[in-house]
Amino acid sequence: MSRTVVSSHKKTVIIGFDQPFCVIGERINPTGRKKLAAEMAAGDYSTVERDALAQVAAGAAMLDVNAGIPLADEPAILAETIKLVQSLTDVPLSIDSSIVAALESGLSVYQGKALVNSVTGEEERLEQVLPLIKKYGAAVVAISNDETGISEDPDVRFEVAKKIVERAQDHGIPKEDVVVDPLVMPIGAMGTAGRQVFALVRRLRDELGVNTTCGASNISFGLPNRHALNQAFLAMAAGAGMTSAILNPLHDEEMAGVMAANVLNGVDANCGRWIRKYREPAPEGSAAESAASARGERRRRRAV
Amino acid sequence: MSRTVVSSHKKTVIIGFDQPFCVIGERINPTGRKKLAAEMAAGDYSTVERDALAQVAAGAAMLDVNAGIPLADEPAILAETIKLVQSLTDVPLSIDSSIVAALESGLSVYQGKALVNSVTGEEERLEQVLPLIKKYGAAVVAISNDETGISEDPDVRFEVAKKIVERAQDHGIPKEDVVVDPLVMPIGAMGTAGRQVFALVRRLRDELGVNTTCGASNISFGLPNRHALNQAFLAMAAGAGMTSAILNPLHDEEMAGVMAANVLNGVDANCGRWIRKYREPAPEGSAAESAASARGERRRRRAV
Repeated sequence: MSRTVVSSHKKTVIIGFDQPFCVIGERINPTGRKKLAAEMAAGDYSTVERDALAQVAAGAAMLDVNAGIPLADEPAILAETIKLVQSLTDVPLSIDSSIVAALESGLSVYQGKALVNSVTGEEERLEQVLPLIKKYGAAVVAISNDETGISEDPDVRFEVAKKIVERAQDHGIPKEDVVVDPLVMPIGAMGTAGRQVFALVRRLRDELGVNTTCGASNISFGLPNRHALNQAFLAMAAGAGMTSAILNPLHDEEMAGVMAANVLNGVDANCGRWIRKYREPAPEGSAAESAASARGERRRRRAV
Repeated sequence: MSRTVVSSHKKTVIIGFDQPFCVIGERINPTGRKKLAAEMAAGDYSTVERDALAQVAAGAAMLDVNAGIPLADEPAILAETIKLVQSLTDVPLSIDSSIVAALESGLSVYQGKALVNSVTGEEERLEQVLPLIKKYGAAVVAISNDETGISEDPDVRFEVAKKIVERAQDHGIPKEDVVVDPLVMPIGAMGTAGRQVFALVRRLRDELGVNTTCGASNISFGLPNRHALNQAFLAMAAGAGMTSAILNPLHDEEMAGVMAANVLNGVDANCGRWIRKYREPAPEGSAAESAASARGERRRRRAV
């Protein structure tokens, strides 16, 4: 039972098979958000502030922080953003960059044990990123592609993930601190994308014993009614053993999928979170009745 | 790869691992519907007619037909209802009764190969129902409880299912014609209910090689926001290998869960059903653009 423990200065979060699915808020990311990119480059963090608070209020257990702005000083902006977000919220952060200097800059100011997003199976990346992970005692997202790109063969992706986990161990990083992203392809372009990921997640859990994550919304790219598809994908992925995902917690449908999966996987004790979020306001004086109903004490078969 | 083939006079439906999830409409059932019960007892089938047509329009691949009305002539009413529904729709039916004489009466008028709902592992039921299944060449739902009731131990429920499948074979009924209902308990009363069912469905598929079904809405009994919970349950059950369920296809959320699971399990070719159902009406002259987008040909990363 792998348990990935991450923390902020104030709070610890555990990613694990016996834990509620870990929602990592994806919003603090200027990629594809021109206005946010311009703001951050100009030192205006008002949107970052709002996104941080809103995502935590919506149920994010962690926040991903990315400062990938073309031509900007990414290491400096990433560090600034991390300091700001840590001053506003107490959730652990995922430090997200493809630039190694930015990862180090972020790690150097981070208070707690961060998740670093990410390392791939590319030789150069492994030897640049893993020493940083070790130096700062962080955890890391391992993306299962390498020099040859993203394989469409799930067996190859599994082998890449295995190589990264082994290499991390060579660097003194325990496998508990490696969270594998098996890579989610758009199902509209590749009909086997769902089955592949579910099978990979099961293998990563059963054979490699590692936690997993993904960018959930990729699955529905190009299709209509994306939120309903993401919702089912998250529930099915959690059912297959996935333990976290990077997603937008401001979308009710995705969060309903995650929360329902927690109930159905038996990691929402007494359905407490579900009931607190979704119970209807009880009419005057009917609190007891409502609670009894929620506990399933009225067992008569009811048509719905 | 078990394939349960059922049919009406006009249409064949296959329940199987490589098929779209089989939605069996649950509405034609007077249990808990007082008004419907009174109508059917008085020979008024107007609600039955509407329910039959609406469920098929909403995407039901089969319809369950039940005429369990206290003090009424159930065998006669069930036969009448079946004849009526077969005159209105071409989907195969599930003939649903706990009274053996009613099952026989229904089978005697049914045109095609019906699914009989149900037989349990109780000795008396086995020896009454299985000969009927054989005589009429039907398929049957096998409910995994016996004289001792419904076990909370999934291993016991698996053994009961196995016993029914073996007994059916003794009666000359192939296992392809036995669809096992592993029994879904309310998760509000039993926190392990989801995990149990998913594990049971996987075993029933991998070890016994049979198709499975369930009454899906039981899972959410007593909890708020039942439809979202049912939606995730259906997707997760389909992900675990469940191949059919009895549910209300008039609920959009449940159907979205089933349809998304078909996409994600790779049994909705080119996402065709999903796109047809959910695509937004294209602005004048943009049909080609819309189709290209739906096929995921525009691959740029898009924030949602």
